Amino acid sequence: MMPTKILLPEDELPTRWYNVLHDLPTPPPPVLHPGTGQPIGPDDLAPLFPMELILQEVSQEQYVDIPGEVLDVYRLWRPSPLYRAHRLEKALDTPARIYYKYEGVSPAGSHKPNTAVPQAYYNAKSGVRKLTTETGAGQWGTALAFACAQFGLDCEVWQVRASYDQKPYRRTMMQVFGATVHPSPSELTAAGRKILAETPDSTGSLGIAISEAVEAAVQDPEVHYALGSVLNHVLLHQTVIGEEALIQLAMVGETPDLIVGCTGGGSNFGGLAFPFLREKWAGRMSPVLRAVEPAACPSLTQGTYAYDFGDTIGLTPLMKMHTLGHDFVPDPIHAGGLRYHGMSPLISHLYETGEIEAVAKPQSECFAAGVQFARTEGIVPAPEPTHALAAAVEEALHCKESGEEKVILTALCGHGHLDLAAYNAYLSNTIIDRNWEDADIQSAVAAALTRLPALS
Amino acid sequence: MMPTKILLPEDELPTRWYNVLHDLPTPPPPVLHPGTGQPIGPDDLAPLFPMELILQEVSQEQYVDIPGEVLDVYRLWRPSPLYRAHRLEKALDTPARIYYKYEGVSPAGSHKPNTAVPQAYYNAKSGVRKLTTETGAGQWGTALAFACAQFGLDCEVWQVRASYDQKPYRRTMMQVFGATVHPSPSELTAAGRKILAETPDSTGSLGIAISEAVEAAVQDPEVHYALGSVLNHVLLHQTVIGEEALIQLAMVGETPDLIVGCTGGGSNFGGLAFPFLREKWAGRMSPVLRAVEPAACPSLTQGTYAYDFGDTIGLTPLMKMHTLGHDFVPDPIHAGGLRYHGMSPLISHLYETGEIEAVAKPQSECFAAGVQFARTEGIVPAPEPTHALAAAVEEALHCKESGEEKVILTALCGHGHLDLAAYNAYLSNTIIDRNWEDADIQSAVAAALTRLPALS
Repeated sequence: MMPTKILLPEDELPTRWYNVLHDLPTPPPPVLHPGTGQPIGPDDLAPLFPMELILQEVSQEQYVDIPGEVLDVYRLWRPSPLYRAHRLEKALDTPARIYYKYEGVSPAGSHKPNTAVPQAYYNAKSGVRKLTTETGAGQWGTALAFACAQFGLDCEVWQVRASYDQKPYRRTMMQVFGATVHPSPSELTAAGRKILAETPDSTGSLGIAISEAVEAAVQDPEVHYALGSVLNHVLLHQTVIGEEALIQLAMVGETPDLIVGCTGGGSNFGGLAFPFLREKWAGRMSPVLRAVEPAACPSLTQGTYAYDFGDTIGLTPLMKMHTLGHDFVPDPIHAGGLRYHGMSPLISHLYETGEIEAVAKPQSECFAAGVQFARTEGIVPAPEPTHALAAAVEEALHCKESGEEKVILTALCGHGHLDLAAYNAYLSNTIIDRNWEDADIQSAVAAALTRLPALS
Repeated sequence: MMPTKILLPEDELPTRWYNVLHDLPTPPPPVLHPGTGQPIGPDDLAPLFPMELILQEVSQEQYVDIPGEVLDVYRLWRPSPLYRAHRLEKALDTPARIYYKYEGVSPAGSHKPNTAVPQAYYNAKSGVRKLTTETGAGQWGTALAFACAQFGLDCEVWQVRASYDQKPYRRTMMQVFGATVHPSPSELTAAGRKILAETPDSTGSLGIAISEAVEAAVQDPEVHYALGSVLNHVLLHQTVIGEEALIQLAMVGETPDLIVGCTGGGSNFGGLAFPFLREKWAGRMSPVLRAVEPAACPSLTQGTYAYDFGDTIGLTPLMKMHTLGHDFVPDPIHAGGLRYHGMSPLISHLYETGEIEAVAKPQSECFAAGVQFARTEGIVPAPEPTHALAAAVEEALHCKESGEEKVILTALCGHGHLDLAAYNAYLSNTIIDRNWEDADIQSAVAAALTRLPALS
């Protein structure tokens, strides 16, 4: 029988990240300075990021070597396992062969440390003493706390107040890894004090938390800021996932017909998909690449492709991306990592040019797939990757009807050990689905975009 | 550099469990019927367990073949990884080489599924429809819920009321795997109704929950009961851990000088240690085997070696073991899996005959080791295995002083993703240590043993 786990030996851990910018059939639109309307340059980003990350953000080289110190930390959990979902296939009675690349083996329990570790490394190397960041439910904050511990950096996290109070366990995990965690809004920044003066009982938002973390970073040259998705260098770091999966599938003689991954900011999907896109463009395979987003936050399938801010209150450069408007507030769905108004410019460009597909799924369908997966494969998935699982199950059931033996590769980007309250809501039938009408979304996006600065 | 992860290929998964009874230098004392004082026979256990498990309980064969259906489920996570703790060693500045065998990769997040899966398999094969069990914090209940889902069995769990109310996430995880979970005491059994009549707001105990699960099992021939530690067949199933670790250490040319594991009922420690004891008795290595127990529940280091009940209210046969008295109530330490008044008869016999050592550790020292481990190795350990980590760190620091390059093998039996409230207590300095005076323990044990039935 074909093995259940396809394990890549540690000495075959990829030593380069793949830069999809090198191979794009058409170049993506530039990132613009909101004041000048002109493309931003490295100096604009220097108060926030070290120069090596800024250069990676705009690099046209096909590959970037992974530093040895980063590989040493990656080896704590990488190469991550690729699984054949024998028991799920049997339960579905499908001729499809389902594989899942599992990133839940990492210290934070998701794919986030793949970029947190190099971000911490390059910052430490440049003499930075501390990193600041924001976090919602806490996945990204946990990853950065762990990464900072590896390179002797302090780590300061602003966690959205509602999560800070209601989900204390992610906060504790950040503290176990040595981070200092503040509820946001806080009295520690001007942005936080302003919000608290207006709304003393504010439960916060990711936008406010970003403002606080950025403000704390720019005031001290020894302090930088780190972001967990959306940007080119973040997606670059995540390609280690797809490079491993390529080798692992080849080890069992398989070529994928369909690759599915969930998309919030886009780093999980991009990390798995980009190396397969390279193989597709080289004519070595022809997989369909399908991004799966929540129906409650459908940036690719219902958003507008336009320049918009990356944050809610307008501190960032303007990026051309699929957006629901920078002040869009998604429903409080349980897949907190997918509640983002925009989509990575790289993923947006690939979608706009027809290289990838996208579908939206309601969360009840996703949790149903998650429970079936747990009962067959033994892993309770995070709410985010249940979106990919729902799409994989859907395709496998199509195969059952058609008799096609498709090879489906799924990004299982994290476990759900800290998301059991969400499963409890699903099992108690208190999950609420929200499907947007196209017209409602489009008028909201149009209104948000009128509030942008005029571009020259 | 030596690899961080020593991965055993899936086709080298052990196909036999090792039965330490075959090789014991002296046989252990028999288990006695509390009514007759005579050794119990298979028929005494038939209302609770299928005959194949009863025969494994008393088998003298050196090896028991693992059924193919059990191996198929084991392959979801087995062989489990063996890690070299490079980054912990560096932080300790020790010449010792520290390895940890990690069982947190299993569906329940601990070593418990190693026995839950074969127990569910043999029961399903014997025509049983449902398994009942008790659980405290929920590790064992989760493992059995998962195992029952694999073989189409119903699973009914009585969870101690205090845990049921205060730690809802383990309950949810059992429900995700398909189990029905009741708070104990419940109105569903005579035992539960009796307790509730006397104490309507009872928060329950493991002893009461055992009574309810056993009562529900014996009333229906299609329902059996399952136990997660202590018994010979449970320790037999766990030897798959040690058999894998033996091969993995040999792959990197290492022989252990010290093996440390935490002990509650004894199945984690026995599972790792027994195959190494076989090698020791065969003259192929000479490791020290050290059990580590909580100072708040020191059955090996301060208990009495005597016949006692396995449960609190006296339903089980009498087992000769190290005991704190069947009505001993340990402090509510965070390592719930180590809060048991007795010790597996096999482990007790090996301790009494000088084959293994034991030490007791206060929980604050254990959490300190757990936090250091998380910050270096990236895995947040469950409170139980932090006891083994504390002993490993202690030995590694001795090696730093002496310059000895000892090889230390540690049983890391589970992750702490559902134990973060315990870490929060530690980081908030609200952990309480309890060290028993020998005299206090011994008078308590003596009093408990006077309440036993007279043995002929």
